[in-house]
Amino acid sequence: MAARFGLHEQWLERMTGNRSRYFCNPDSPAGVPKSTGDLATAAGGKALEAAGLGPGDVDFLILTTASPDHLMPATVNLVADRLGIDGVPTFQLTSGCAGALQGLYTARALLAGGLRRGLVIGADTCLKFWPSKRDVADMRPAEMINFALFGDGGGAAVVEADTDGPGFVVEQMVLRAVGLGRKPAQVVRWYGAEGAPHVTGPNGISAPEPMGEEDYKAIERHVPEAAARVLGELGDLTGWLPAEMDRVLTPQLNGVMTEKIREYLGVRPEQAVSCVAETGNNGNALPFIQLRRARAGMNGTADGARVMVATIESSKWVISGMALRHQGASDGR
Amino acid sequence: MAARFGLHEQWLERMTGNRSRYFCNPDSPAGVPKSTGDLATAAGGKALEAAGLGPGDVDFLILTTASPDHLMPATVNLVADRLGIDGVPTFQLTSGCAGALQGLYTARALLAGGLRRGLVIGADTCLKFWPSKRDVADMRPAEMINFALFGDGGGAAVVEADTDGPGFVVEQMVLRAVGLGRKPAQVVRWYGAEGAPHVTGPNGISAPEPMGEEDYKAIERHVPEAAARVLGELGDLTGWLPAEMDRVLTPQLNGVMTEKIREYLGVRPEQAVSCVAETGNNGNALPFIQLRRARAGMNGTADGARVMVATIESSKWVISGMALRHQGASDGR
Repeated sequence: MAARFGLHEQWLERMTGNRSRYFCNPDSPAGVPKSTGDLATAAGGKALEAAGLGPGDVDFLILTTASPDHLMPATVNLVADRLGIDGVPTFQLTSGCAGALQGLYTARALLAGGLRRGLVIGADTCLKFWPSKRDVADMRPAEMINFALFGDGGGAAVVEADTDGPGFVVEQMVLRAVGLGRKPAQVVRWYGAEGAPHVTGPNGISAPEPMGEEDYKAIERHVPEAAARVLGELGDLTGWLPAEMDRVLTPQLNGVMTEKIREYLGVRPEQAVSCVAETGNNGNALPFIQLRRARAGMNGTADGARVMVATIESSKWVISGMALRHQGASDGR
Repeated sequence: MAARFGLHEQWLERMTGNRSRYFCNPDSPAGVPKSTGDLATAAGGKALEAAGLGPGDVDFLILTTASPDHLMPATVNLVADRLGIDGVPTFQLTSGCAGALQGLYTARALLAGGLRRGLVIGADTCLKFWPSKRDVADMRPAEMINFALFGDGGGAAVVEADTDGPGFVVEQMVLRAVGLGRKPAQVVRWYGAEGAPHVTGPNGISAPEPMGEEDYKAIERHVPEAAARVLGELGDLTGWLPAEMDRVLTPQLNGVMTEKIREYLGVRPEQAVSCVAETGNNGNALPFIQLRRARAGMNGTADGARVMVATIESSKWVISGMALRHQGASDGR
């Protein structure tokens, strides 16, 4: 990041708290993920493998992403082909930070509707968002921070109606759009062949419309209280207390903000499961990476460890969460 | 179309069989839809009104589209705000011609999962796909036909777990991705601020990557047989015979192709419900428009009229269908 954008490492560290992250690179050698579809395929394949399943063992496939490879076909159907999944319903949900939980919520409904087992994937890439011709030296820090926060990634989970197998049992879920009368705090645009239209700014100067915009003030103000609300609701639904949870997966904006939110929520450091400082905010992938870390830390833990998850999407304000019970993972799956 | 692209009206009529269609225009007066979100809001609002419901009466909102207004926020959440829908789960599915049925399939699962009532919307616009700077006179007819087939539109339906109310009762649904090892027959790309990258063609000349591509040969070959398969499966699931249906909603590619498919399927003219010749292929909106026409034609029809629907998505091959039973619509809803 420092080299690419001429940013100071210390500035990056102090402003974002992010120490590393991963980016797809079109010039990477064969076999290294280069797109949302590549990341989704890799994550989905690993999830199937970890569950000891083949492509014929799932009754549906869900991909959630904010950065599909094309408008059409839906990336999920290209991923299905590459994984060898065929003849089952597929769904691609357009989502941001709440996407992984939206995918799992949809999966839960499909299981309720009679399907037996599915694969849910979340993946995102920043590939088309990087400034290239435009001189990054002309960018204001407020604009630059957009590029300093995000990362690429994929995550996936196999979901089953069966609640006896090893893994996390979903006890309760919360999912709600709460954007009535509130401005989006994140906008990411897409363009046709002509690229960005020129827009005239308040200074009267015409410039290409920015591809992305974030309202960090609104995010800093609303995400912590929304996360507290989600944990409170999960507590009401389950009778569990956040303070008694074995793990709490908190919103992952960047290393600095995530730590502030953890403190605001009263989540103790040993309860928290974070990854954003190493992965960057990779959107739809992120909760899966947190869940994997949470689970890895539970090997040897007695059955019944309890987990709460809260993710908040600031784009147009979606709150989501789930209460999980960990079950028999002696084989490390 | 003739004026805009310098096409002959007779050529358009003979090649596509489309007599009219509707396009969003950014210069339209206030109140006239100008985007996918505008169309979705209008359609969703009308569906609620026709059902005598307000925004607080739905437990979820689904939008299916291939042409969202932004990558983020999901257009569905902007539509929710404009309709006054808040505090419920929202979903945006990335879909093409099978999108309306994907939305209804997802809705059915959400109803099975315990939600009571939802609003499902399908909408698409071609707004960003039109050639502007590029000289349309240089285009080959094969390229031009992409612009001659599509149209803009929105459609919506209120769905309920209740099967006593007036409307269509969904008896059976079919939804499957069947793209294993098959090339996409439709690709639509999106770009970052830089617009389309230049690619070198087989002639060695570098030109901007085309935004959309269609393989009409594959579509002409596979859509009719896929539709026949869907009707056959619906017959197996319900015990109904397509020939005995009061109405059959067939795939809508363009006026000419739709008529050919109708004949191939053995659907009699009085059974068929088509709209593409007037609307163009407006993707996710289209089956809702067919359903509305089917229902309008049933006022006064005895309860229990039966309908089969088949829609085929050629992007990466998704087949979908449903078998419906019409019920008590004496009030014309």
